[in-house]
Amino acid sequence: MAEYPPSLERLLHELGKLPGIGPRTAQRLAFHLLKQPSDISKALANGLIEARTKIHPCRDCYNLTEETLCQICMSSNREKTSLLVVEDPSDVVAFERTHEYRGLYHVLGGTLSPLEGRGPQDLTLDALVARVKNNKTFKEIIVATDPTVEGDSTALYIQQLLKALPVKVTRLARGLPSGGDVEYADESTLLKALEGRREL
Amino acid sequence: MAEYPPSLERLLHELGKLPGIGPRTAQRLAFHLLKQPSDISKALANGLIEARTKIHPCRDCYNLTEETLCQICMSSNREKTSLLVVEDPSDVVAFERTHEYRGLYHVLGGTLSPLEGRGPQDLTLDALVARVKNNKTFKEIIVATDPTVEGDSTALYIQQLLKALPVKVTRLARGLPSGGDVEYADESTLLKALEGRREL
Repeated sequence: MAEYPPSLERLLHELGKLPGIGPRTAQRLAFHLLKQPSDISKALANGLIEARTKIHPCRDCYNLTEETLCQICMSSNREKTSLLVVEDPSDVVAFERTHEYRGLYHVLGGTLSPLEGRGPQDLTLDALVARVKNNKTFKEIIVATDPTVEGDSTALYIQQLLKALPVKVTRLARGLPSGGDVEYADESTLLKALEGRREL
Repeated sequence: MAEYPPSLERLLHELGKLPGIGPRTAQRLAFHLLKQPSDISKALANGLIEARTKIHPCRDCYNLTEETLCQICMSSNREKTSLLVVEDPSDVVAFERTHEYRGLYHVLGGTLSPLEGRGPQDLTLDALVARVKNNKTFKEIIVATDPTVEGDSTALYIQQLLKALPVKVTRLARGLPSGGDVEYADESTLLKALEGRREL
């Protein structure tokens, strides 16, 4: 019985650890890389090592950075009055793409999820409370967790944590997405859109 | 405008070069690796470098190997009378899994494809002809390219190349796949199954 050479087996094993990469995909990726010039594999390997070594959470907001503070926390152009609380660093990038929000961020590192064993100690909630307490500049905390059961309960939990502090805690609006279709909207979305209706 | 840190941008760029990995998937993979212990990224990086450095085509059959000859060509237990011609090294592994075929292999490195600019010189066809000519032991050449237009035309091309030589050139049977469903079989498969029908 011939199998793959040992080094290829090891590569397939490592690729297979990635989320969403099954044995077939791992094989497709590995064969692709073996066919390409070795520069391609080297660049990917270096990219992995470099990113994993250099990147860590921002001291203040837990966004990803190579410095002590992330670009946003270091910037002097941001408004220090509002704090947008998101689940992950990719959410920060999504909001930055709107080019509208000019305040600061706080990255939770996920949501509360008893089912998956994630409690308050697994998120950056203590740091959030300390940050809001110590920075008297914040007037509004905008909770932008996902519009899911877990995102909603995390938002409620944050509201409770910050209740005693002199800040307004708000949540992103719910309703129909731009470009959406009333006919195909799910019931929960339609209900939220009705509840949140506004005068024209 | 904040973007990702430079090292993360580079990693996303390198991941995005892989087949079937779009920006969203690249982001998911990168964030996963950043959350895991750095050993995981290091092992993957080493796997990439090691596989790409050590693995090359077998001198005789063009299967993947870390030595001069692959395990199958080196083995003394294989029958030297039949040669199974496949497109890729993964096809060799597929046939080896059947535990039935005991002959040798020849890996073409793909199929002829004028549309994608792959001609005879891009496959190991010259080596195949030389091998059949020089090894008087081969009695049958089994062409096991994929049952596609390109696989079929490559098979015909090989048959022409070997016509003058004293070997039988055969092609894998076409028909219904085991566990398949007549109702859902496509027309081409049903036609081939009819054409190739055998007495019970």
